[in-house]
Amino acid sequence: MKTLSVSLGERSYPVYIGQGLLDDSALLTGHISGKQVFVISNDKVGPLYMDRVLALLKGYTCHSLQLPDGEKYKTLDSFETIISELLSHKTGRNATLVALGGGVIGDITGFAAACYQRGINFIQIPTTLLAQVDSSVGGKTAVNHRLGKNMIGAFHQPVAVIADTDVLDTLEDRQLRAGIAEVIKYGLIRDAAFFDWLVDNMSAILERQPEALTRAIKISCENKAAVVAEDERESGIRAILNLGHTFGHAIETAQEYSGWLHGEAVAMGMILAADLSVRLGWLDAGELARARALIDAAGLPVTLPQGISPGDLLEHMALDKKNRDGALTLILLEEIGHAVIRDGIEHELIVETLSAYS
Amino acid sequence: MKTLSVSLGERSYPVYIGQGLLDDSALLTGHISGKQVFVISNDKVGPLYMDRVLALLKGYTCHSLQLPDGEKYKTLDSFETIISELLSHKTGRNATLVALGGGVIGDITGFAAACYQRGINFIQIPTTLLAQVDSSVGGKTAVNHRLGKNMIGAFHQPVAVIADTDVLDTLEDRQLRAGIAEVIKYGLIRDAAFFDWLVDNMSAILERQPEALTRAIKISCENKAAVVAEDERESGIRAILNLGHTFGHAIETAQEYSGWLHGEAVAMGMILAADLSVRLGWLDAGELARARALIDAAGLPVTLPQGISPGDLLEHMALDKKNRDGALTLILLEEIGHAVIRDGIEHELIVETLSAYS
Repeated sequence: MKTLSVSLGERSYPVYIGQGLLDDSALLTGHISGKQVFVISNDKVGPLYMDRVLALLKGYTCHSLQLPDGEKYKTLDSFETIISELLSHKTGRNATLVALGGGVIGDITGFAAACYQRGINFIQIPTTLLAQVDSSVGGKTAVNHRLGKNMIGAFHQPVAVIADTDVLDTLEDRQLRAGIAEVIKYGLIRDAAFFDWLVDNMSAILERQPEALTRAIKISCENKAAVVAEDERESGIRAILNLGHTFGHAIETAQEYSGWLHGEAVAMGMILAADLSVRLGWLDAGELARARALIDAAGLPVTLPQGISPGDLLEHMALDKKNRDGALTLILLEEIGHAVIRDGIEHELIVETLSAYS
Repeated sequence: MKTLSVSLGERSYPVYIGQGLLDDSALLTGHISGKQVFVISNDKVGPLYMDRVLALLKGYTCHSLQLPDGEKYKTLDSFETIISELLSHKTGRNATLVALGGGVIGDITGFAAACYQRGINFIQIPTTLLAQVDSSVGGKTAVNHRLGKNMIGAFHQPVAVIADTDVLDTLEDRQLRAGIAEVIKYGLIRDAAFFDWLVDNMSAILERQPEALTRAIKISCENKAAVVAEDERESGIRAILNLGHTFGHAIETAQEYSGWLHGEAVAMGMILAADLSVRLGWLDAGELARARALIDAAGLPVTLPQGISPGDLLEHMALDKKNRDGALTLILLEEIGHAVIRDGIEHELIVETLSAYS
């Protein structure tokens, strides 16, 4: 087992990565202070792992809840369902919530933990690659609104993240690839050596070779933890973690969260960001080609979904929360391994980029 | 104008108290960083003061929203209405929300500010005595749930509080008295000299003599600011601000937020807390009589509303968020001017107290 730390003063917490962690009772209970535990999962992950997690919690008063699976249920309605369940079980202020699932469950459970009685503890047990390498670490919690993704949320750090790599065995290939998109992101934004390693090891990762997968998760989490420790509330550098996300969110919103997976949209978004960087003269065309080749090798989308116009996407981008007072702010690349935050990008250039991949 | 400071490091902010502050454009705009301002009020206060506030905001892109008046609209639905309005006006992350109203508008606007895009700035312009002396200061934001008051919320400090005492001229007598309940609270929990002053000056306050009213507001805010600065997130001493509130919330919940005003319920709750303190042998019966006499002199309730049984109230109290893992924690009095936090109170004694005032 590898243990990383997200260093945030009194809000610091460990990220455990390894095999068989879901059999380790002390690992989980060591981070529970009260007597009440509420485990939240979905109807896909719950049937696979809920009983195992509850079995670790002997001696605690446990309740559980399974939401429907999918990004389209990451809503204020689901949030309210959680709150109502917590209240009807008289859950107290020193109870602990456990998020057992992918990014959607982690985000919505974290937001419920942030708001229930003005904030209670929660633990992340991410069960997708995407959640293990990205969304479970860093304390961003949220639900979506019809008019935009993650528009309602809070910064609320978990007290621990337990990433058992064994659970990835039951992950569908498509979900695995979606997670790889965020892995590639770390290479693109701040770790050129990792990018090179990914180029050499992508087939091993896709074949789920344990060593390759564990290394990919560990280095991803190290990158994430370092950025979060530097800028917890995204007043600056943390924004580079959003590479591809403004484009990606626009795609997801246009599809009403019923089309591509988040990671797929982000993969496409990273290509668009790289393409735009080339058009602005900041990135070498050869680097764009390398980024696109790696994303392609991971089996991720390299052209936009049909039926969505560049104009629609631009409209959704303008509403993305990273765009203050109407000016578009984007994360772009100066080279592989070096992302930059830029605002005031001309809309015409963005439309050119979007059109080139439609 | 008096200016107090709530000292919370980088989250410190001023509380302005005085006459004519709603005519002072610089006072308001000095705390607005972006270009977008969204003013939220209700259909009672909005018609009186919205235009005046908007007139202070020349040069900003302003929108406003008026919710229905009343505690029963302090819901997740109203919260969602605000978020939807913010999104449909493409409100950005560096916009400022302004809460123009009483405690309900302040709490719900603050919670929207806490969650919109994971947190934006907001300014409190409290228009009731209760909001001026209590709820606008300290960063507690929330909405109610059918199963309990303030169950969904966040700690999110405003960037400024502007308390114009002139607006109290339009306040109904009943609302004024409800605010006085929280004023009396500060005397009871930590300021015996202020309690004595209130005994001598209650009729001046009820007659709205400006000097008496301003002094009552200022000393109340000083007490509140001192407690909040010591314990922002209520991990300890801040809980004394909840004197009478566990009882009071139970009354409000039993009445489904359609009966007594919050301050009325708190007034009754303070008498119940004092009575219980006497039964436990911690408070002199003469002190209870003095507390009750002052609350009575303020025209506030001194017996429980009809039709609600002690058993019902106890059930609601057990669900109050201050009661961890089922054990009842209450704020009680050792003397006037000295509140204490106590847990493990026997339910039988509480029922005795409740029965004595039914």
